[in-house]
Amino acid sequence: MNFKNCRSVLVTGASRGLGLQIVESLATGGFSPGKIIATVRNPATAQRLQELAEAHPNIYIITLDVVSQESIDKAAEEVGQLLQEEGLNCLINNAGINVVADFQTVTAEMMVENFRTNSVAPLMITKAFLPLLKHAASRGGAGSAGGMGIHRAAIINITSLLGSVELYWGERANTFKWYPYRTSKSALNMVTRCMAVDLESEGILCMALHPGWVRTDMGGQEAPLSPEESISSILSVMGELTEKDSGSFLHYTGEPLPW
Amino acid sequence: MNFKNCRSVLVTGASRGLGLQIVESLATGGFSPGKIIATVRNPATAQRLQELAEAHPNIYIITLDVVSQESIDKAAEEVGQLLQEEGLNCLINNAGINVVADFQTVTAEMMVENFRTNSVAPLMITKAFLPLLKHAASRGGAGSAGGMGIHRAAIINITSLLGSVELYWGERANTFKWYPYRTSKSALNMVTRCMAVDLESEGILCMALHPGWVRTDMGGQEAPLSPEESISSILSVMGELTEKDSGSFLHYTGEPLPW
Repeated sequence: MNFKNCRSVLVTGASRGLGLQIVESLATGGFSPGKIIATVRNPATAQRLQELAEAHPNIYIITLDVVSQESIDKAAEEVGQLLQEEGLNCLINNAGINVVADFQTVTAEMMVENFRTNSVAPLMITKAFLPLLKHAASRGGAGSAGGMGIHRAAIINITSLLGSVELYWGERANTFKWYPYRTSKSALNMVTRCMAVDLESEGILCMALHPGWVRTDMGGQEAPLSPEESISSILSVMGELTEKDSGSFLHYTGEPLPW
Repeated sequence: MNFKNCRSVLVTGASRGLGLQIVESLATGGFSPGKIIATVRNPATAQRLQELAEAHPNIYIITLDVVSQESIDKAAEEVGQLLQEEGLNCLINNAGINVVADFQTVTAEMMVENFRTNSVAPLMITKAFLPLLKHAASRGGAGSAGGMGIHRAAIINITSLLGSVELYWGERANTFKWYPYRTSKSALNMVTRCMAVDLESEGILCMALHPGWVRTDMGGQEAPLSPEESISSILSVMGELTEKDSGSFLHYTGEPLPW
């Protein structure tokens, strides 16, 4: 991974799964960002994260319930005090849920619950942290003559291949018939694209990244990838992002995915 | 248009705009379906539709508030009594709203409101009317040896080109920066694809159709198409649908659109 010139990263949903692994890999990697801000809904129960933060003083734990506007605003204020004029280089909207339901069992409330967390929250969080991303973007990026990327200001939305409408056909259509989850990730992909369009002129990159199918609480034990493998790969992809990746949807291997 | 072998059509959001035009064009066309079921939230205020129904006894007005499960269930029961074992050949999920908001003004509640009406309602309505669609599908279709299409059982979701993530880039990215609307239509496209996957084995076609940019209350007066032009074109596309169109996203001209 190439986080050498990325001074600050914020990761949502950092108490377990991919979010926790991102924090751990960044904290223990060769080039650790100056400030790793790990947000969790309830810090008191995030034991592994607390242990990591004790061992690595560049980890800052912040309370954030991603579906509460009050909580988002409060977290943005706290992070603002921490980062000040340096701003935020990299916002990773990782927090997500899977409200499992198929055609028979799905209800309107299940659809809305998954949509609020997976699609709307990344938008509202980005709005709240925009001043900090702008600060970072306006500084142009350390060790660079400008351009776009995590050395400057970037928003990474952790989405899923299951949100690809195009890929959900033929052989791929036999599994994961999850209406709320798939729909929320398609919606997140559009939110990502909208933000990429609107923030490009500010020098802020926005893209959607599929982390692979990973052995986490959400992915289950039959998944092919370990969290370490997935995160090693996606941190490497994040490190290589440039302006050509603005508005993109990438596989954890770096390959583009169809919408 | 080729509605000759389509005995029954249900159109949501039929009090005005495209929904009203669909009802009018079907009622006054050369081959009018035996039963045109026009659903509206409040029949008392749907004056033009009432007038049409007085002139055309094959129009049946049914009350349906698409975001109320109670209302959906009640409407499905009423329509079931009307259609009985004949079932429903064609369900047109047309009702939709545009909660206009850009990056600066969008709120979580605006996102959810647009999502409930444009993405979730077509799913919940389809679930409620599924027994009627199955009845129609199991009869195999009048004037046909089977196959798929509006002669048998079809779900047409009225979506929008603005829901195409792929097309929202470059030159097309300068206008209609509507987060709630675009996101709701991307989500509807995934809902459409999911239903197409799940209902294909029942002989029920499901697809997403872009009606063009039309001079309606929603489209505004600067839109290039009249309601008559749009509906003439989309009814013609609907009439030609076959099994190859299951899970598709088509322009009102019949051309496939990218997701």
